[in-house]
Amino acid sequence: MNTYVYGYGPEGKERLIVIDLGVTFPDMEGSPGVDLIMADAAWLEANVNRIDAIFLTHGHEDHIGAMAHLWPKLKAPVYARRFTAHLAQLKMEEAGLPSDMIRIVEPRPKAVEVGPFRVQFVPVSHSIPESSSLVIDTPAGRVVHTGDFKLDGNPVVGEPFDPLEWHEIAHEGTGVKVLCCDSTNVFSHTPGRSESTLVSPLKDLIAAQKGMVVATTFASNVARLKTLAEAGRAAGRSVCLLGRAMRKMVQVAEETNVLKGFPGTLSPEDAVEVGRDKLMLIVTGSQGERRAATAQLSRGKYLGFEMKEGDTFLFSSKTIPGNERSVIRIMNALSEMGVDVVDDHGGLYHVSGHANRPDLDAVHDLLRPQILIPMHGEHRHLREHAKIAASKGIATEVATNGTMIDLTGAAPKVVEYIETGRVYLDGSVLIGALDGVVRDRIRMALNGHVLITVIVDEDDAPLGDAWVELMGLPERGKSGGDLMRIVEDELSAFLESAPDKVIRNDDKLDEALRRIARQVAMEEIGKKPEVTVVVSRLMAE
Amino acid sequence: MNTYVYGYGPEGKERLIVIDLGVTFPDMEGSPGVDLIMADAAWLEANVNRIDAIFLTHGHEDHIGAMAHLWPKLKAPVYARRFTAHLAQLKMEEAGLPSDMIRIVEPRPKAVEVGPFRVQFVPVSHSIPESSSLVIDTPAGRVVHTGDFKLDGNPVVGEPFDPLEWHEIAHEGTGVKVLCCDSTNVFSHTPGRSESTLVSPLKDLIAAQKGMVVATTFASNVARLKTLAEAGRAAGRSVCLLGRAMRKMVQVAEETNVLKGFPGTLSPEDAVEVGRDKLMLIVTGSQGERRAATAQLSRGKYLGFEMKEGDTFLFSSKTIPGNERSVIRIMNALSEMGVDVVDDHGGLYHVSGHANRPDLDAVHDLLRPQILIPMHGEHRHLREHAKIAASKGIATEVATNGTMIDLTGAAPKVVEYIETGRVYLDGSVLIGALDGVVRDRIRMALNGHVLITVIVDEDDAPLGDAWVELMGLPERGKSGGDLMRIVEDELSAFLESAPDKVIRNDDKLDEALRRIARQVAMEEIGKKPEVTVVVSRLMAE
Repeated sequence: MNTYVYGYGPEGKERLIVIDLGVTFPDMEGSPGVDLIMADAAWLEANVNRIDAIFLTHGHEDHIGAMAHLWPKLKAPVYARRFTAHLAQLKMEEAGLPSDMIRIVEPRPKAVEVGPFRVQFVPVSHSIPESSSLVIDTPAGRVVHTGDFKLDGNPVVGEPFDPLEWHEIAHEGTGVKVLCCDSTNVFSHTPGRSESTLVSPLKDLIAAQKGMVVATTFASNVARLKTLAEAGRAAGRSVCLLGRAMRKMVQVAEETNVLKGFPGTLSPEDAVEVGRDKLMLIVTGSQGERRAATAQLSRGKYLGFEMKEGDTFLFSSKTIPGNERSVIRIMNALSEMGVDVVDDHGGLYHVSGHANRPDLDAVHDLLRPQILIPMHGEHRHLREHAKIAASKGIATEVATNGTMIDLTGAAPKVVEYIETGRVYLDGSVLIGALDGVVRDRIRMALNGHVLITVIVDEDDAPLGDAWVELMGLPERGKSGGDLMRIVEDELSAFLESAPDKVIRNDDKLDEALRRIARQVAMEEIGKKPEVTVVVSRLMAE
Repeated sequence: MNTYVYGYGPEGKERLIVIDLGVTFPDMEGSPGVDLIMADAAWLEANVNRIDAIFLTHGHEDHIGAMAHLWPKLKAPVYARRFTAHLAQLKMEEAGLPSDMIRIVEPRPKAVEVGPFRVQFVPVSHSIPESSSLVIDTPAGRVVHTGDFKLDGNPVVGEPFDPLEWHEIAHEGTGVKVLCCDSTNVFSHTPGRSESTLVSPLKDLIAAQKGMVVATTFASNVARLKTLAEAGRAAGRSVCLLGRAMRKMVQVAEETNVLKGFPGTLSPEDAVEVGRDKLMLIVTGSQGERRAATAQLSRGKYLGFEMKEGDTFLFSSKTIPGNERSVIRIMNALSEMGVDVVDDHGGLYHVSGHANRPDLDAVHDLLRPQILIPMHGEHRHLREHAKIAASKGIATEVATNGTMIDLTGAAPKVVEYIETGRVYLDGSVLIGALDGVVRDRIRMALNGHVLITVIVDEDDAPLGDAWVELMGLPERGKSGGDLMRIVEDELSAFLESAPDKVIRNDDKLDEALRRIARQVAMEEIGKKPEVTVVVSRLMAE
C-alpha cells in the first residue's frame, strides 16, 4: 500500500507532493471480511491545503488501488503517464469521481512543475507497461524515486532500460542528492533476467502439449500476455483471454499504444467450439484468488470450459508469500482432474519485475547518490539494502511507515514519526484497523459466540429462564449433554438465587452471566467463547 | 494426518493393521479456533474387532499426533521402536491413557507377528531419529511401506541408509510385491544431501558472529540440534535450549540412547547471566508458532533474553507452505530490532528429510516392486510419482483419502471408496469437519454478527422496540448514522405494522427480521451479516 510524501519549504509549512496511493490485500488471519487495506491518510487530510499534486509511478494495485478511496480526501491533481492514467481514470469513473483530475504526462525531458517541485517521469522496466521512476528536483537538490523497477534491455513490451539517460540524470547540475530505491529483490544475488528470455522456453513448452493449454499470470503483465499469446499462436492454437481484468489490461494497453501486434483472440463463446488441442486459454487468478478464472477452472466447468486428463495448466508466475495455501489447493484440484500442472520451473517460465542485488549495485554506481533511502520491501529488505549503501559510504536510513526524514543535510535525519496506520475498506465503508471491528471478528472465529437473553420484570425479578443461542460452537460437551441446555440451566439456577442488587444492576448482571457461561463452556468444551448478553427490562406502565 | 490401513483375509472379514495415527494443523482460513485436525476414524471404529495392531513409523506429529485422541476408539496394541514408543507413551500418559499398550520393537531381523501379518522395522534416515520403513509380509506377498525417509549415509544421529539391507529385502522370497513410497520431494531433481553436509557451514556461520546467536529448527530434528549445539560450543559459546518440546526431545533421545555426546547445556536461568558474545540459544518455533520461543523473542523480552542490534537469528529450517506469513512477520520484527536474520540460504544451513527424485529412482531400482503406490505428499506429488512408476513399467495407482485398493493382483485395483474425512479437536471435544461449527465461525469472521431480540407479549403484540447488538461490524454506516440504531428503527417500524400471522409464527417472524437486518446492513455498510434472532414470548399466567 505504497504512499510516499515529499515536502519542501519552511518547517511545518512545507509544500507537499504524494507519490502513489496503493492498497494491499486482506487475509483471513489478520483481516477477515475486509475488502482492501490502504494507508491511513489522516495526516495528509489534516494538511490537505499543502498538497500540490499526486504522482502515480505505475498501474499496479499496490500503487494506484486506493485512488477511488483516498483521492476524495486529498483532491489534488494527479499526474501519470498515459497507460497508468487510463487505469486510474477507470477507477475514478467506476466510483463516480471526476476522472479529469488525472493528467497525462509525457516522459522526460518533459517535466511537471508544481510548487517548489519539478518532476520528470523516466521510463523503467517492470512487470507492467510504462512503469516510471520520478526525478524530483527541489531547491535542496535532486531526488530520484525509482518506483518498482528492473533493468531490462529487451522487455518485450515498453521501453528498455536506458543507461545513457540515467547517466545524464546522475550528471546534470549537482547530481543526485537522494536515491529512494526499490529493495524487493535485494536478497536475490544473481543479475535479473530479461522478460525476453521467456519467449523461447514458453514457445517450446506450449508447442509440446497435446491437450488444452491454460496459462495464468498477472493480468497487468502485458508483456507476458503477449509472449504467451504468441507462443500459443506459433503452436497453431487459437487464443482466448478469460477474466475481466485481463481483457481490460490488454484493451487499455492497446488503446494507449503501449501494446502493438497482440495476436487476435477469440471470445469465450467462440473458444468453447475449438478442439482442445487447438486451444490456449490465458486466464486470471495466478495467486489463487477465489473468484478468478484459475480457481473456477479448478472447481469444474467454467464458461463452458472444463479441464481434463492430458491438459496442461501453466503458472507463469510466482506465488506471493501468504498465497501459497490457495495456489497449492488449486494445483492439487487440477492434478485430481488429471491435468499436468507446470509452475515457473525455477525461473524458466517466469522472471521477476524487480531489480536483483547486482542490478541495485549497478544503479547505485550509475547514480552515485549522496543519500540512499531503501523502499519497497519488508523491513528485512530495507535493512539489507541500507547495509549495502553503508558499505559503499552512502548515507542511509531505514524508514519505517510514518517516518519523516530531513534529506537536506549530508545525511538523512529522522525529524518526526507521524501517527500512521491502516484503514480497511469493509464492504462499502472505511474503518480503522484498530477500531476493534476486525478484532471482534477474529475472536468470534477463534472462540465462537454465545448469546444470552434474559428478561427482567417490572419488579426486578427474572421472568422465565435464561435463553441461550450458540454460534460456531459444538452442540455437545464432554458430558455428552446439549451444550445450550447446560448453559441455560446454569444461568437459570444462578438467576433464581441471585441477589437483587445484581439483578438490578445491568453491568453486574451482564458480567455474572458472562462469567458463568464462559466457565461452563470451559468445563464442557475446553474453550471460553465470546459472549453477548441482552437483558430486557419490562417497564411498569 | 497420516493413517494407513492394510488388510488381509476373506472379503469384508480382512484382519487389519493400522500404520500411524497423525494430525495436521489448523489455519485461520479453513479451520479457525480448531486445535488439531485428524482423520475421521469412523470406518475403523465400525471394524474395530478386526484391528490386530497399530504400527508407528516415527515420532513426528503428523504420524503419532492423534494417538491420544484416536487410540481410545481403536484400543489395539501399538508397536514402535524405542524412541518413537517413548514419545507416544508420553502422549498417552498426558491423556491418562494406558501407556503400556505401546510395545517397543527391535529393528529387523526382529519381527512382529499379528494375525496374517509379519512386520519388520527397517531403520531409515529422516529428520527425526529412528524413523522406520515397515516390511510387511502377508500370504499374498511382501509390502514395503517406506514411511518418511531419505537416503543418508551419514545422518549425524541414528542409523545410516544401508543399501545392502534393502538389497536383501528386495531379494528374499518372491521379492517386493508392493512399494508404498514417500513422494514429498518428487519435484526436487537433484540428489538429496546428507545431514552431515551442514556441520561445516553451520560451524563457520556461528564462529563468525559477534553478538548473541539464536538458532531455530524443528524440535524433533535431534541431529540438527546436535550439529547446532556443537557448532556453538566450537565457537566458545554456552548453549541453552529454549522451549519445552525441544528439551523433551533431547531428553527422550538421550534416555533411549539414540543421542550420545550432546554438549552440556545451561538452563535459561543460568544462560541469562552469560555475555551475549558467549551465548547461543537453540529455540523452538521455526514455523512461526505464536507461543513458541522464536515468536516470543521477536516480540521482546522472553525469559530474561532480549535480542539486540548485532545479534544473529538463524532459521535452520524450511518454511512449510502456509506458514510463510507468520515466519516473515517474525523475521521482520527481528530485523526491526537490528538483528541479522539468516535463513537456510539455499540449502547451506538446512537439508530436507525426504528423498529427492533421484533417490526415489534409486529405491525403485533397488526394490524392483511389482506395484508402486505413492504416498506422503499432495495430489500433484502422488500423480508425478505414479507417472514415474508407469514410465518404468511398474503398475501404479494414485490413492486419494479413503481409497481401498486390492493389491493381490498384478496391478492395483480400486475396490471401494470408504467414506472418510476430517475430525477436529476443538478445545477438549472432537467435532466433525462438516458439522457446521467451523463454517459458522468463518461466516461470522467474514460477515460479522447481528443479534436481534424481540419480546412478544401474551396477546401476540410486540412489547417495546426491537433490540439489536452488533459484533464485528462497523459502528457507522454510509449515512453516517449509528448502524445499530438504524437497524433497530427499521425493525421496530416493521414490527409496528407487521400482520398478526407473522408475529405469531416464530419462523416467519425470524425470517422477516433477518431479511430486514441484512438488507439495511447491505445499504448502510455494503455487506450482509450473519443474523441471530431471539423472540421471547411472554406467556399468559
